[in-house]
Amino acid sequence: MYIIGELINGMYKSVAKAIRERDKDYIASLAKRQIDAGCDALDLNCGPFSSDAEADLRWLVEVVQEDADVVLCLDSTKEKAILGALKSARNKTIINSSLADPEKLKRYLDISKEYNSSLIALLMDKSGVPQDKEKRLLLAAGVIDLAIQQGFSMDELYIDPILLPINVAQNQLFGILDTIKDIKLISDPAPKIIVGLSNISQGSGSRSLINKTFLVMAITYGLDSAILDPLDRDLMDSLITAELVLNKNIYCDSYLEAFRKSKSR
Amino acid sequence: MYIIGELINGMYKSVAKAIRERDKDYIASLAKRQIDAGCDALDLNCGPFSSDAEADLRWLVEVVQEDADVVLCLDSTKEKAILGALKSARNKTIINSSLADPEKLKRYLDISKEYNSSLIALLMDKSGVPQDKEKRLLLAAGVIDLAIQQGFSMDELYIDPILLPINVAQNQLFGILDTIKDIKLISDPAPKIIVGLSNISQGSGSRSLINKTFLVMAITYGLDSAILDPLDRDLMDSLITAELVLNKNIYCDSYLEAFRKSKSR
Repeated sequence: MYIIGELINGMYKSVAKAIRERDKDYIASLAKRQIDAGCDALDLNCGPFSSDAEADLRWLVEVVQEDADVVLCLDSTKEKAILGALKSARNKTIINSSLADPEKLKRYLDISKEYNSSLIALLMDKSGVPQDKEKRLLLAAGVIDLAIQQGFSMDELYIDPILLPINVAQNQLFGILDTIKDIKLISDPAPKIIVGLSNISQGSGSRSLINKTFLVMAITYGLDSAILDPLDRDLMDSLITAELVLNKNIYCDSYLEAFRKSKSR
Repeated sequence: MYIIGELINGMYKSVAKAIRERDKDYIASLAKRQIDAGCDALDLNCGPFSSDAEADLRWLVEVVQEDADVVLCLDSTKEKAILGALKSARNKTIINSSLADPEKLKRYLDISKEYNSSLIALLMDKSGVPQDKEKRLLLAAGVIDLAIQQGFSMDELYIDPILLPINVAQNQLFGILDTIKDIKLISDPAPKIIVGLSNISQGSGSRSLINKTFLVMAITYGLDSAILDPLDRDLMDSLITAELVLNKNIYCDSYLEAFRKSKSR
């Protein structure tokens, strides 16, 4: 599993404050804690209330890469902010994200290639989020087809089936799991599949329990990557154990510690 | 999920002692605690050191059914002990278990029909436990075929693919999961699939974590029933949440409590 830390996000008040006040130490510390917990990449999102997304995202990139040799997941709906961040980034990047509409996706594939970046494509277009597996797979096939036409490597393409909250779309969650499995079958080589995990428990009680349960299911169905809270130790234990059961790491009595040690830098 | 409590088993010293001393209160209390935790049935096993399995198992049946209206899962390798327990049981029973060898299985199917009992058939024969999915499916097909020939209802047949410990057969666990899914495809109606969950973590550290992670995976792959420790609250929370994600219970903020309330008698 490719683990992307979700905590540097301006939707959290403390992070929004740190961005506003250009509090480097707060952001650097949040980066370090997530990397220490086993993250391969960090999501950077200046949040919905940023008055200057371009400047804010670029500042986040600069602060994080000053200390940490980590992949940067540039999370913004604003193309200008993404472009500015790409120009500032020295490290490998992932653009988070493009919609599946061909015109927009084509532009983002071009930008990703130009900057040697990976790209997350959402299974969502102008008409919104699909409500069943068939429409999700249709969108996924369109994304993969366009990426192949543009000569974009499947290794660099992440497809996000958009995880819906259990308290509003409980009956769609198995379809989303099944979509993960089936996307892996419609192309060889297959793109990677990613989810923004915490979305499933948005507005629910028992958030950590719901998150970790779905994560174990999705890993079993072929999920490659998740944007998640790496400081949730129970969640990380479940992730590590799921990969152990699937024989992706070798069992030893101290397999949790061994995994964490293998990730430490 | 059909939940069978595993705790009345003479392999635990305290239970062996209670059986030896005919301590009704101890066994009745262990039965009540498991039922209160959400069990549909209770496994009864007099353990490997019982000097009179027939008398011991019959005593367990009598003690448990005195207070509790619960299905009894009669767990013995000794046919005499199973027969004696069946004669004493007033409640619905599950025979745990028969090997897959046709001669033995045929006799157990006959006994099960005679006593209106369900039957757990192990995917294991005289030559031992299969080491790959193909052999597991071959055994399962043989079991299903014989059951159909004997007019045995698939509703009453449980197939146990035999969960191996992660510290000795880590590379077979995904094959066992896949076996669960595929058995569901080779017959319509399909038999039920059951596992003895704790076996996976036999001799490991992090037992509860490994148990609950595999349980979530197996439920997602179509598992119908598990023999497990219902007093492990984390495990039960994972079970309940897995069924919630799969849309088998309706979401509400207090879904854990709602599930437990629905199971209480």
